[in-house]
Amino acid sequence: MLSGDVGNGLHSFAAKLYPICRSITGDGIRQTLNVIGERIPLQQFNVPSGAHVFDWIVPKEWNIRDAYIKSLDGKRVVDFRDSNLQVLNYSVPVKARMTLSDLRPHLFTIAERPEWIPYRTSYYKEDWGFCLSHDQLLSMKDAEYDVCIDSSLESGNLTYGECYLAGKTNEEVLVSCHACHPSLANDNLSGIAVATFLAKLLSLCEHRYSYRFLFIPGTIGAITWLARNQAGAQRIRHGLVLTCVGDSGGFHYKKSRRGNAEIDRAVAHALKHQNEPSEVLEFSPYGYDERQYCSPGFDLPVGCLMRSVWGTFPEYHTSADNLEFIKPEKLAGSLRLCAEVVAILENNRSYRTLNPFCEPQLGRRGLYRSTGGETIAEEINARLWVLNLSDGTNSLLDIAERSGIKFSKIYDAAQLLEQSELLSEGAE
Amino acid sequence: MLSGDVGNGLHSFAAKLYPICRSITGDGIRQTLNVIGERIPLQQFNVPSGAHVFDWIVPKEWNIRDAYIKSLDGKRVVDFRDSNLQVLNYSVPVKARMTLSDLRPHLFTIAERPEWIPYRTSYYKEDWGFCLSHDQLLSMKDAEYDVCIDSSLESGNLTYGECYLAGKTNEEVLVSCHACHPSLANDNLSGIAVATFLAKLLSLCEHRYSYRFLFIPGTIGAITWLARNQAGAQRIRHGLVLTCVGDSGGFHYKKSRRGNAEIDRAVAHALKHQNEPSEVLEFSPYGYDERQYCSPGFDLPVGCLMRSVWGTFPEYHTSADNLEFIKPEKLAGSLRLCAEVVAILENNRSYRTLNPFCEPQLGRRGLYRSTGGETIAEEINARLWVLNLSDGTNSLLDIAERSGIKFSKIYDAAQLLEQSELLSEGAE
Amino acid sequence: MLSGDVGNGLHSFAAKLYPICRSITGDGIRQTLNVIGERIPLQQFNVPSGAHVFDWIVPKEWNIRDAYIKSLDGKRVVDFRDSNLQVLNYSVPVKARMTLSDLRPHLFTIAERPEWIPYRTSYYKEDWGFCLSHDQLLSMKDAEYDVCIDSSLESGNLTYGECYLAGKTNEEVLVSCHACHPSLANDNLSGIAVATFLAKLLSLCEHRYSYRFLFIPGTIGAITWLARNQAGAQRIRHGLVLTCVGDSGGFHYKKSRRGNAEIDRAVAHALKHQNEPSEVLEFSPYGYDERQYCSPGFDLPVGCLMRSVWGTFPEYHTSADNLEFIKPEKLAGSLRLCAEVVAILENNRSYRTLNPFCEPQLGRRGLYRSTGGETIAEEINARLWVLNLSDGTNSLLDIAERSGIKFSKIYDAAQLLEQSELLSEGAE
Repeated sequence: MLSGDVGNGLHSFAAKLYPICRSITGDGIRQTLNVIGERIPLQQFNVPSGAHVFDWIVPKEWNIRDAYIKSLDGKRVVDFRDSNLQVLNYSVPVKARMTLSDLRPHLFTIAERPEWIPYRTSYYKEDWGFCLSHDQLLSMKDAEYDVCIDSSLESGNLTYGECYLAGKTNEEVLVSCHACHPSLANDNLSGIAVATFLAKLLSLCEHRYSYRFLFIPGTIGAITWLARNQAGAQRIRHGLVLTCVGDSGGFHYKKSRRGNAEIDRAVAHALKHQNEPSEVLEFSPYGYDERQYCSPGFDLPVGCLMRSVWGTFPEYHTSADNLEFIKPEKLAGSLRLCAEVVAILENNRSYRTLNPFCEPQLGRRGLYRSTGGETIAEEINARLWVLNLSDGTNSLLDIAERSGIKFSKIYDAAQLLEQSELLSEGAE
Repeated sequence: MLSGDVGNGLHSFAAKLYPICRSITGDGIRQTLNVIGERIPLQQFNVPSGAHVFDWIVPKEWNIRDAYIKSLDGKRVVDFRDSNLQVLNYSVPVKARMTLSDLRPHLFTIAERPEWIPYRTSYYKEDWGFCLSHDQLLSMKDAEYDVCIDSSLESGNLTYGECYLAGKTNEEVLVSCHACHPSLANDNLSGIAVATFLAKLLSLCEHRYSYRFLFIPGTIGAITWLARNQAGAQRIRHGLVLTCVGDSGGFHYKKSRRGNAEIDRAVAHALKHQNEPSEVLEFSPYGYDERQYCSPGFDLPVGCLMRSVWGTFPEYHTSADNLEFIKPEKLAGSLRLCAEVVAILENNRSYRTLNPFCEPQLGRRGLYRSTGGETIAEEINARLWVLNLSDGTNSLLDIAERSGIKFSKIYDAAQLLEQSELLSEGAE
Repeated sequence: MLSGDVGNGLHSFAAKLYPICRSITGDGIRQTLNVIGERIPLQQFNVPSGAHVFDWIVPKEWNIRDAYIKSLDGKRVVDFRDSNLQVLNYSVPVKARMTLSDLRPHLFTIAERPEWIPYRTSYYKEDWGFCLSHDQLLSMKDAEYDVCIDSSLESGNLTYGECYLAGKTNEEVLVSCHACHPSLANDNLSGIAVATFLAKLLSLCEHRYSYRFLFIPGTIGAITWLARNQAGAQRIRHGLVLTCVGDSGGFHYKKSRRGNAEIDRAVAHALKHQNEPSEVLEFSPYGYDERQYCSPGFDLPVGCLMRSVWGTFPEYHTSADNLEFIKPEKLAGSLRLCAEVVAILENNRSYRTLNPFCEPQLGRRGLYRSTGGETIAEEINARLWVLNLSDGTNSLLDIAERSGIKFSKIYDAAQLLEQSELLSEGAE
């Protein structure tokens, strides 16, 4: 299922969402959730502006129709219709004629990357502005301009989406991604696409855990969700924040605050046994919504999976984080890794050998090589490891880590041994 | 005692045992135990075929008188009398005339090492075959041959030998080596020789621990012994499996399943403070009889001492593992290391300083240098370490590890301080 | 306060003390304490010869007026008036005419450094001798000499000095330095100078801890102090032995016996966040008075701060450890480091976030950057770390260590957050 055209499917899905002007509230995110909802069962929740969520207040809803800077000859020198990045996200309405020098404090550029438009926001301080390429700025004459931002910032709702896939138990795996960025591909249409496809995959099979996928505005969305689900959050056993998973970089996994949670170990194991370069990073309180999930009152076992780390690649938060910046095969690889992690979480459990005293005679059961004197294959080695360490205190992931053998092979060995009545499930 | 000709003595002893055709049962192993019994007190135990030992059944007894492949002109092209490796160990009797192509599935060679004969067995699946050099195989014409294996596989006994040397306490140190391989020198005549000589050494002196040396067939022998000594095995405080201790490679010590048992630390310490290259390896459940001693129900603190690791040197399980492959000085070095480990185990204990508050005045007792201003010798340093750490929670081995000073020097310091009434034995 | 001429001030202070002939008892150390007492409140204690202090006895008091070796033509070839190192410290009186060969066993030189005079002592074995440069020795003819040591070794007192600076609590920080060496600059006038200036600094400000500065004879002084303050020593929460802190080498900190005491972590942190090369060393029971403070009955959290490690630089315990060997800027750097360590100890405490569930909204309080999309400054990062880890189980030093941010910035963040009513003091 993960072979073939899944990479192109992921990329096309991201491309479909790319033009939408998203923000932390408003029609853009709702439109985005509608598109996601065409693929997976998705429930939308609306939380009214002004609602108190822990230390925060849900902000007014922002919508935008048009924005431009027009020279007096009527030519748009900066045009929201070219790119939704051109307006400072959450700009209040403005309509004025002003000189370049009066306008200048409202213009954001990146001098070092003169062709790229930066992405800037002002959610919590009422402000307005334009983001433009430095080349655009340099081409603007010192003259008067007609400036217009046709936006609204009014009482409304914060909207987020949840896809809940019930499993055999009500213990939950959380997959969270922020869906508030406008036309930025890696951050975070890549995360949205991988999460959507992963949910689709899981909706087609049985699973032990229940899975909850959140498509939420960054920070305020996670805070709102946690405020409305404070008790339910205690059912979260493992969690992943997905972002920047489409670029050409190797994998980076940022561990949860706990640092040695099962999710941390599962991802580290999966990364170790795949072929792309990867690095496991320590937790830090700055980043994406793991900030909220890992706040001390919750301290949930939620890490963050990325390829290139936000803030470390020049395209980050600029117009260069576009659809060419994300690659089908990299999106597919990220989905594959997530599926691998899910397989570890689903299948990780503890067993007890039914022959604790000396090895059982595997040969008699056709589970060993018959000619002595030769070395054994890895699958036999996996059986020996499972039998030796299954004393009720070691999980299969413990065994995989200690043996250095890939989890899936350890799991296969355990299944075979259980079928052979040499092993039974159950921790100490 | 370990100087001089001990290396030659060990090598001669191995040479004496070399020609015997051993297997996991039968006359070969009994003959071997008889030779060992000429040097040390050795009790032989017989366990009848068919006896249940945990998940296993003691197999029928195998004996062999002759085996060959003869061309029709009467010439033996493969001859058991040349080397007992030439027959698949535990081959059932066969007497037939057959073509090379019918015979071929019963012939084992190593194409990459065309001059060497492989060592192969078929203990638990009734089969027959010949092991021959690839050159031998290539020289055989596509013709008919007279094939004969004059063996017997009948109800009898599994035989093993025990040398028990009582010490001041009934806490035991186990030294185990497999004695079931035919003409293979490093694996495991080297282990048999070193164990025999170590037992001889210990029989000549007093010791705190009781020592139990096992000369047993691999796997089934260890399982049989454990099945018959399940309660008694709980007295084992430390243990070593000895194998492949005669070749020219550096030392390898594979740790017990526990990973930080006193034996693991004692061997690691002894290796660190000798001059040959060495490496300490993590436990794994594949290997020699530590597999059984370290099965989860027993979990005994038993590691495995080797020079070159089985399976990693090309001579392993071939006719090239012969008497030239093992060296007198390497056998002697292995014995010396074992003696060093025994000395650590014997002498490791905890003390309490009788002057816990500030240093005692060593100078007054002649235990310090008298002219101040110069640096101190290592033996004085050892005294300071012993005094500082002997608070009842640190053993001498703990102190040796933390100080980086060789155990024997720490022990000497403790002895001297005890004689000087500055220290008394006793843990917290 | 630590800028400007503090380095010169430290060096001048050392220079003032340099000519005094100190020993473990006698007028020299009292004269030294008097000079220290001109700068900081210092109480002198006298303990009579013969007093029992744990396993030791306070020795007789030693004083010296003159010493020389005179050729028969009346010329002093070795002269105490040139350098107080020229006499074996604690030499008993002698007045005799003797041949060079009879004198020879009483002469100490360093053949490898023919221009330097060694420093030697004989506190606990009655002896006499001269220390001289090897060049001096070689120039001495094989003739008769008049030998005189005009010293006295009589019942008297051992004298030490204490500067106690009361803080808000009676929990103590100990700073100890030996004041028994004659004209040796790095060992230990550097330590005396830095300790004196540190005490002066602390006397000018409020502090949580009480500080106890000890200026004591090495070994016997620490033992005497501990014997007379056995109960009071339990109030010591952190301690430093200061020695060899004036030379040009990088810092070395030898950890306390505990190895992970707060003082060990505080010094390691301060060293990591300054610019000079530095190394943290494991505890060992040989060294300076940490030997006594870290004896097992006390096991106090006392480490030893040095630049070059005693015994590892050729000037150690020779006349080359002179005033040129210690540098004003290095003394100042050592004082600065001590002040940094004190600041960590003083300010290290645990807090609790008052918003454990999700991040508080820092932006609303002006504690965040207002334009989203850009990366944050280190000071904001420090706030996030403090908020995330302040769950009552982590001290500010824990947070500084985990975040990699300098303690002072973590502390500033905590202060600001406390003022903003986002944090309150208090461990779990």
